[in-house]
Amino acid sequence: MDNKVINLDSKFALFAAHWSPKVIAEMNDYQFKLVKVEGEFVWHDHPDTDEVFIVIEGTLNIAFRDKVETIESGEMFVVPKGIEHKPFAENECKIMIIEPKGVLNTGAKDGELTAPNDVWI
Amino acid sequence: MDNKVINLDSKFALFAAHWSPKVIAEMNDYQFKLVKVEGEFVWHDHPDTDEVFIVIEGTLNIAFRDKVETIESGEMFVVPKGIEHKPFAENECKIMIIEPKGVLNTGAKDGELTAPNDVWI
Repeated sequence: MDNKVINLDSKFALFAAHWSPKVIAEMNDYQFKLVKVEGEFVWHDHPDTDEVFIVIEGTLNIAFRDKVETIESGEMFVVPKGIEHKPFAENECKIMIIEPKGVLNTGAKDGELTAPNDVWI
Repeated sequence: MDNKVINLDSKFALFAAHWSPKVIAEMNDYQFKLVKVEGEFVWHDHPDTDEVFIVIEGTLNIAFRDKVETIESGEMFVVPKGIEHKPFAENECKIMIIEPKGVLNTGAKDGELTAPNDVWI
């Protein structure tokens, strides 16, 4: 059993880029990804899977077509599959995302904010 | 879209029992469970799934047959499927567990520490 304890702060210290998920752990066919976000992301959805956001530090907003949710440190939110959403953060915010392996950050849309997938730190 | 922001501290305030997982969220067929632990759990394994432990407050130890891992607040650990483990904590510790819906806390063993499953708060 080679698995090791994973310290979130130590992992966050390893990268600076925004909107660029880094994989820190795998559970069955799901991945745990750390992301630093600031500014506005793009509208997108994930047609085949729910997506969990856990805010580790800062304040994350997620716009939906009918409302905006504000998620603070120590809070989490489950975005249901197929629901359009657009994350945004006024100041830098550190989050953990949990979703199946292979999910692209921009969903079905491939654009300039589409990050390389399955990048481990 | 009825999903709401989930505040971990508020959810932890809703129960006191040790070793009794409470479900706070579902992502596809996976569940997020909060648990307060203190003292020793039992040796067990989950033959069909990995299991993720995230420590929210306090210090969690997980004994394996060949070593003991110590997981502090802000750290996580993935216990691979089929690996025998025994969580224990000297003082009360608050953790979040992520695993497929239907997994019993004691694995294949049914004993006095087996908690009711799928209890939502």
